[in-house]
Amino acid sequence: MSASSPESRTPAVREFIAAHREPFLAELGEWLRIPSVSAQPEHAPDVRRSAEWLRERLAATGFPETEVWETADGGLPAVFAHWPSADPDAPTVLVYGHHDVQPAALADGWQSDPFQPEVRDGRLYARGAADDKGQVFFHTLGVRAHLAATGRTAPAVNLKLLIEGEEESGSPNFGELIRRPANRARLAADVVVISDTGMWSESTPTVCTGMRGLVDCQIDLYGPDQDIHSGSFGGAVPNPATEAARLAAALHDGHRRVAVPGFYDGVVELTDRERALFAELPFDEEAWLRTAKSHGTLGEEGFSTLERIWARPTAEVNGVWGGYTGPGGKTIVPADAHLKLSFRLVAGQDVEKVREAVAAWVAERIPDGIRHEITFPGATRPCLTPLDHPALTSLARAMETAFEQPVRFTREGGSGPAADLQDVLGAPVLFLGISVPSDGWHSVNEKVELDLLSKGVEAAAHLWSELAEGLRPTDPAR
Amino acid sequence: MSASSPESRTPAVREFIAAHREPFLAELGEWLRIPSVSAQPEHAPDVRRSAEWLRERLAATGFPETEVWETADGGLPAVFAHWPSADPDAPTVLVYGHHDVQPAALADGWQSDPFQPEVRDGRLYARGAADDKGQVFFHTLGVRAHLAATGRTAPAVNLKLLIEGEEESGSPNFGELIRRPANRARLAADVVVISDTGMWSESTPTVCTGMRGLVDCQIDLYGPDQDIHSGSFGGAVPNPATEAARLAAALHDGHRRVAVPGFYDGVVELTDRERALFAELPFDEEAWLRTAKSHGTLGEEGFSTLERIWARPTAEVNGVWGGYTGPGGKTIVPADAHLKLSFRLVAGQDVEKVREAVAAWVAERIPDGIRHEITFPGATRPCLTPLDHPALTSLARAMETAFEQPVRFTREGGSGPAADLQDVLGAPVLFLGISVPSDGWHSVNEKVELDLLSKGVEAAAHLWSELAEGLRPTDPAR
Repeated sequence: MSASSPESRTPAVREFIAAHREPFLAELGEWLRIPSVSAQPEHAPDVRRSAEWLRERLAATGFPETEVWETADGGLPAVFAHWPSADPDAPTVLVYGHHDVQPAALADGWQSDPFQPEVRDGRLYARGAADDKGQVFFHTLGVRAHLAATGRTAPAVNLKLLIEGEEESGSPNFGELIRRPANRARLAADVVVISDTGMWSESTPTVCTGMRGLVDCQIDLYGPDQDIHSGSFGGAVPNPATEAARLAAALHDGHRRVAVPGFYDGVVELTDRERALFAELPFDEEAWLRTAKSHGTLGEEGFSTLERIWARPTAEVNGVWGGYTGPGGKTIVPADAHLKLSFRLVAGQDVEKVREAVAAWVAERIPDGIRHEITFPGATRPCLTPLDHPALTSLARAMETAFEQPVRFTREGGSGPAADLQDVLGAPVLFLGISVPSDGWHSVNEKVELDLLSKGVEAAAHLWSELAEGLRPTDPAR
Repeated sequence: MSASSPESRTPAVREFIAAHREPFLAELGEWLRIPSVSAQPEHAPDVRRSAEWLRERLAATGFPETEVWETADGGLPAVFAHWPSADPDAPTVLVYGHHDVQPAALADGWQSDPFQPEVRDGRLYARGAADDKGQVFFHTLGVRAHLAATGRTAPAVNLKLLIEGEEESGSPNFGELIRRPANRARLAADVVVISDTGMWSESTPTVCTGMRGLVDCQIDLYGPDQDIHSGSFGGAVPNPATEAARLAAALHDGHRRVAVPGFYDGVVELTDRERALFAELPFDEEAWLRTAKSHGTLGEEGFSTLERIWARPTAEVNGVWGGYTGPGGKTIVPADAHLKLSFRLVAGQDVEKVREAVAAWVAERIPDGIRHEITFPGATRPCLTPLDHPALTSLARAMETAFEQPVRFTREGGSGPAADLQDVLGAPVLFLGISVPSDGWHSVNEKVELDLLSKGVEAAAHLWSELAEGLRPTDPAR
């Protein structure tokens, strides 16, 4: 074992963390007391206060550059920080997180005030404890532990942080923020680390390798100029509610595969290795169904539940409406009907091509006498870092050092700004998160496990060394 | 031509009508001034006033028995009248109509006050002029012309009238009213005459031979216990909105036939003669589409538009809703989704069997993990009087005598109390109506053509003689 191996640094890292744990938690508590709820306009000043608080803490941590970045008009600010490495060959890492939180009120059923952090049974309860202030803040202690354990005065990588202030409001300005030419240059990185996710469970540390993308779609169908009498006209004119149903029903074939021609073009199929890794996870379908509040599984034939939610693209009806929906009956052919659909994409699928395929498929299926409009309000690209990518190997090593056990690999079925960062910066994305499903994101009694929070600090402390080693450019002279 | 032939009575009938036209129209105008809007509680006293007004007029006409019939608690009254024939062998006829009207206000776009009748260009404009006061009231002059032309002091048939006061409110108490044992005995009849319909057009007198029935259905589908995240769970659990769409879409096969097994059981198919009669009607599909405010025709393959709306059963989606229907998108698997369906039935179909077939078909198609409820809030039976039924021949003769041209045969795609009367009384139903599509039922500027109103009086005057002749029981001794 070389002097620079992560295992050799473990005692120093742990010692440093133990010595600084109390002030670290006290500071995190101070931050959690700021109700930085981005969705509630009355809390906009709190979100701004949260940004300034974080900028100050990052400066105090040692980041030479710390800035509050205003978004477009009316938006809430992000925080940017940069700590250049002393090594001119060092790779550059951009950490993403967010400092805004979901709404919360004691009256919703919290055991303690969501904005008065409280430790009970080794858990820190507060809104934002896991999502995402706890997971952003572990980087402050992490980088200091990294310096202490390696004897450096600057990180082994050029370390950048971008901590968003509108994630819980759907990141309305994030795309513009990271694409603004001046910002884009400052954000340039070789790898992006997302610290806004979680692990399989307390006892099964995992690393996520990708997220699904998303294409939103609304289809509006127009038949008669007004609701008409189904006795006088029904059976002889097209009914837009029927046609909406026929479209939604035709989205899937009998094998529950998406039936839109071209939809699967380019899909990066699961490898045998990844399928085997997923299958090894201690997955309890009954428990999962309880979490899903669902009463059965159903999906694309030939794939397991985990494969379906993590690695397969889907078509989902998010909403449907048309005609009479009040009490009793009304014998009409409705004038219009509407569908809100969303398509989850996986790596290899192209947002624009999926939109074109859906639009063409819809246009072809609409009968004469029905006019339709189709809009695609939003989209998020999928992202996936291959299992053999060196950056992913570095992350796995850092996690394994912290947890002292092998980490497994998962994916995330949801969609997020990770892919946007991957796309804009042209950099692979890593997910470093220590939250667990019981942490209660967006729910009452949100908490973070203090033991896991320490593991997050440890993993972050090791990650910069690992990445500096794993991503070091090959010297062409050698 | 015998002395009793309708043609021979025509001059006397016309003379009588001409002599009594002015007071007849004056009285009708008085009735039309009563705003008997059953749907508006503030007009309940007007509906009662209308019933009493009609009862008095029927008594003045000569009906020996005239009664205001109260419906169940809170309902609005009907009017019953009976004028027995002097002939002990005479058949019994029950005329159905209604004395309540749709809401109307000058501000809706009427050219004159809807409750201040006004004659313009040979048309009488008022709410209820055609639907249905005008068509009820022509029977008062009709029976008197019948007596005058035949020299009788009582009608050739036992003539009964039942004039409902809640038709425009969906006849909530009508079924109870006619099934109440005491009433049912009083209503007993050999034939029912519905005077609440219309003809093809001013220049094409027609007789309707049947109406479609109706089965209302609501299907509620329940998936997750609450809306769940489509990223975390989508693609692996059943989506009730998708399942609702699959049900609604599966209602019709590729030939737009209803795909519920057993649905067509018992359907009385169109005869070649009736198809030929429909095909001879001067049907302008472009004009019909304008009336339907629709932009294309679509329906069961192998049938014309008129056949589809008059003589074929249908399945229609009247309403659909589920999931997120607000602005923007929401990436959920919705907790529930709902369908309001209605099935139009034709003669030979059984309401209960259709309900059972639909319920079984739905139950079989719901996947595991989706709970469903199916309810059938209401139903109306179909009715059809065969083209060769002697009562229909009598009606056609009466109409042809009045209009001096052959009448053609139609059906009605809607559903109404006719079938209920047919069912309760075990009597065939005739439709004697002189309204035309331009009369503006339920719309602004409702009117009745005064020339056609006179033809209605004439046809009614002839019908009682025709029916007395056509339905006379065969004397077993002959």
